[in-house]
Amino acid sequence: MNKHMTTGAKPTHRKARDDFRWEGVEQLPYKEDERALFKSITRQVLFADPELQGELRYFEVAPGGFSTLERHEHMHAVLILRGRGDCLVGSQVRPIDTRDLVTVPAMTWHQFRATKDEPLGFLCMVNATRDKPQLPSQADLAKLNADPAIAAFLGSPSKA
Amino acid sequence: MNKHMTTGAKPTHRKARDDFRWEGVEQLPYKEDERALFKSITRQVLFADPELQGELRYFEVAPGGFSTLERHEHMHAVLILRGRGDCLVGSQVRPIDTRDLVTVPAMTWHQFRATKDEPLGFLCMVNATRDKPQLPSQADLAKLNADPAIAAFLGSPSKA
Repeated sequence: MNKHMTTGAKPTHRKARDDFRWEGVEQLPYKEDERALFKSITRQVLFADPELQGELRYFEVAPGGFSTLERHEHMHAVLILRGRGDCLVGSQVRPIDTRDLVTVPAMTWHQFRATKDEPLGFLCMVNATRDKPQLPSQADLAKLNADPAIAAFLGSPSKA
Repeated sequence: MNKHMTTGAKPTHRKARDDFRWEGVEQLPYKEDERALFKSITRQVLFADPELQGELRYFEVAPGGFSTLERHEHMHAVLILRGRGDCLVGSQVRPIDTRDLVTVPAMTWHQFRATKDEPLGFLCMVNATRDKPQLPSQADLAKLNADPAIAAFLGSPSKA
């Protein structure tokens, strides 16, 4: 089989819609979490191909929502595409705004939170081959909450 | 050496500026091409890390400018970040607008052209390990220009 012909059979152009959705890209719907480790977040896989060693995904957090509090061996390379909010990376809580870049190193707890008035959307590049995210244990959460800045971040799901 | 500590020493947050530049990211300046294979394009490498198998770059084409007409074995995964224009991918010339997605398959001639009134900026994800781009020979150019739509695209460096 000719790999170029196979690749060429896929659409090369996919139009963006005004609502940050894309032609031919499935949006994975909200799935709320009992432990409140994430809230009101959707995912769209923009690029994933056997010939690409990276994947590009778009995550959108509704106003007041937040991404999963997690860590893993693989790195995240993030570009904020719309909105603003705050993010936790390791022990740092930082404001984030449109087009800011965030690097999440290996095995570093992280979470992205939207402001309460607008959605927060971000692109996330990862390795195609990667480990599964780890969720925090009660002991991990206690350790994170020992830092007042992190406690305030985690305790305020809708920060304006 | 502890790879996590090494990674952690790099900045995790890099702020965006209003002009589509980023803190701590070098902008490779214009270098005009005698053969007119590209015009008025700059490059910023947003993410490139030994732990990432992909790289994310931002290219910006000034009004009336265009990216290099080239092909290579590696695939391009493109998201238009600002502006609009037209692009050639293989034998297809298509309009492109902000946030549109463009896939450039292996060994496919491609070029991105800005409109004459605003810059065209796009993100491009590639494999970190990749082959060098190939430029068209006179024979390649003649073959491309045999298609009237491609000839019009290549012949109009400042399409409005």
